Amino acid sequence: MKKYVFGVDIGGTTVKMGLFEVDGTLLEKWEIKTRTEDHGINILPDIAGSIQKKLQEKKIAKEEVAGAGVGVPGPVDVSGTVHKAVNLGWDIMNINEELGRLLGMKVAAGNDANVAALGEMWKGGAQGHKDVVMVTLGTGVGGGIIVDGKIVCGATGAGGEIGHIHVRDDEVEACGCGNHGCLEQYASATGIVRLMTRKLESTDAPSCLRGKELNGKVFWDAVEAGDELAKEVSEEFGAYLGKGLAVIASIVNPEIFIIGGGVSKSGPVVMENVRKNYLPNVFHGCRDAEFALASLGNDGGIYGAAKLLIDQN
Amino acid sequence: MKKYVFGVDIGGTTVKMGLFEVDGTLLEKWEIKTRTEDHGINILPDIAGSIQKKLQEKKIAKEEVAGAGVGVPGPVDVSGTVHKAVNLGWDIMNINEELGRLLGMKVAAGNDANVAALGEMWKGGAQGHKDVVMVTLGTGVGGGIIVDGKIVCGATGAGGEIGHIHVRDDEVEACGCGNHGCLEQYASATGIVRLMTRKLESTDAPSCLRGKELNGKVFWDAVEAGDELAKEVSEEFGAYLGKGLAVIASIVNPEIFIIGGGVSKSGPVVMENVRKNYLPNVFHGCRDAEFALASLGNDGGIYGAAKLLIDQN
Repeated sequence: MKKYVFGVDIGGTTVKMGLFEVDGTLLEKWEIKTRTEDHGINILPDIAGSIQKKLQEKKIAKEEVAGAGVGVPGPVDVSGTVHKAVNLGWDIMNINEELGRLLGMKVAAGNDANVAALGEMWKGGAQGHKDVVMVTLGTGVGGGIIVDGKIVCGATGAGGEIGHIHVRDDEVEACGCGNHGCLEQYASATGIVRLMTRKLESTDAPSCLRGKELNGKVFWDAVEAGDELAKEVSEEFGAYLGKGLAVIASIVNPEIFIIGGGVSKSGPVVMENVRKNYLPNVFHGCRDAEFALASLGNDGGIYGAAKLLIDQN
Repeated sequence: MKKYVFGVDIGGTTVKMGLFEVDGTLLEKWEIKTRTEDHGINILPDIAGSIQKKLQEKKIAKEEVAGAGVGVPGPVDVSGTVHKAVNLGWDIMNINEELGRLLGMKVAAGNDANVAALGEMWKGGAQGHKDVVMVTLGTGVGGGIIVDGKIVCGATGAGGEIGHIHVRDDEVEACGCGNHGCLEQYASATGIVRLMTRKLESTDAPSCLRGKELNGKVFWDAVEAGDELAKEVSEEFGAYLGKGLAVIASIVNPEIFIIGGGVSKSGPVVMENVRKNYLPNVFHGCRDAEFALASLGNDGGIYGAAKLLIDQN
């Protein structure tokens, strides 16, 4: 049994890294810059260099390390092959092999949102469960599905793309993915701004948000302050997300939904709006699913990446 | 390595049974009546008796048999516990234990639709794949999800309840499950009759279906004969089902969709309508999923049940 494992969470701006004991104790975490120029050719060497440096600094022999798990912002299949990571400039590449060669240790890569779900199952809000759906509400809507303790990668690494389930037919604006009417267009921070902007334009009713620059935080603050129009929009948001989660439940029947991302600070009101729309629309066998907030915050990715590596050992 | 395995598919009227070699060769199949009276107390003893009789008849020693797999029309969790099978009169019961005790051999039970999907993966339309979604369009809409070669049972055995994903908000009639706007209300045989009846009532346009007693077969025959109103309804059907499958794809990202059930005789026109609505609504990473018709017909259940037992050995 090896003693240590690294968890790496690659984002578009920074790479978050963690040194763990294999029981999940986080010994140290740090960040390096994500150098996305030149099609992101430096990213993996930078990660390998930083891990080597940490080993020297801590006087840890490579033989004591199980390996490194990696979360990538793009579709990753079960073999560790990334199928384009637009934010990193990457095309198709097998991370397990590439980074494994650079590091001389075992590597296991997965999609970042999927990996974060694994982290929450291991040491966060979904501890003790093995059938988990995590939804991350941030600039976009990310998702991770865990069935019987394992990430659902899918055939091309697009498993758990919860943000892109179709929830509305008459949408005129396009989603980032090119489709129209994706959940992300209403349940992300930008989605909420879209809904609120439309609401303000549709009526003359008063709102503390008129004339303000909108973002997710400003919006949820207005909801908590009791702004009527903002409350109506939060119901709309809850309808999209609650019905979307109900559909997901009828497909994978999770024990627990974990909600993470920027909105988790406004967690209680978000959860209330979601559950109100979840219950009447879900198959009766799925009504008892729990709802909980993510508890690892930005560290979910490094925890989950470490766990991914451990599970593949 | 044992030589034989039984596959059992319990329906509300008959129990289909098959004797297989473990490589999937079907040696013999037969049926017995499903005695649902007295809360279905006779069903498992009848099955056990029929299997014992077959062993004697074929002069097969129990030691040569790997066991019996069983498909049940109700939610079955990963441990083989049925959570109510209304059509059989069953409440909560562990089939693996109950039938295992009666038979003195290993038993593995699963939901019938899930098990049929496994059968299609093993010896039917989805051979060679390991990420499979099967949709059965019959009186209801059943579904089975296979991820990485394994059935997705879910926390309470309600995994793959594709018929009960919410696809329409303004439905006034209730689905059999009690909810409103389930996929089954539009994509099953009764759902198609519902859509066609509404269409005929909404217009005076001519149709060969006016005044006829409607059912799935009559409807699809009219579509193939070029009846305009029936064709419009088949588009509507395709919109519900195609968008529903697109949502499922963004969640589990299958390699292949298998369509089975009564409509499969009208397969080509059904598939065309479904794909037309699938492609514009699915996440781009899932666009290459194949579509195929189920090929085992009513035998899918016994094949899948046999495979379920083999996989759990």
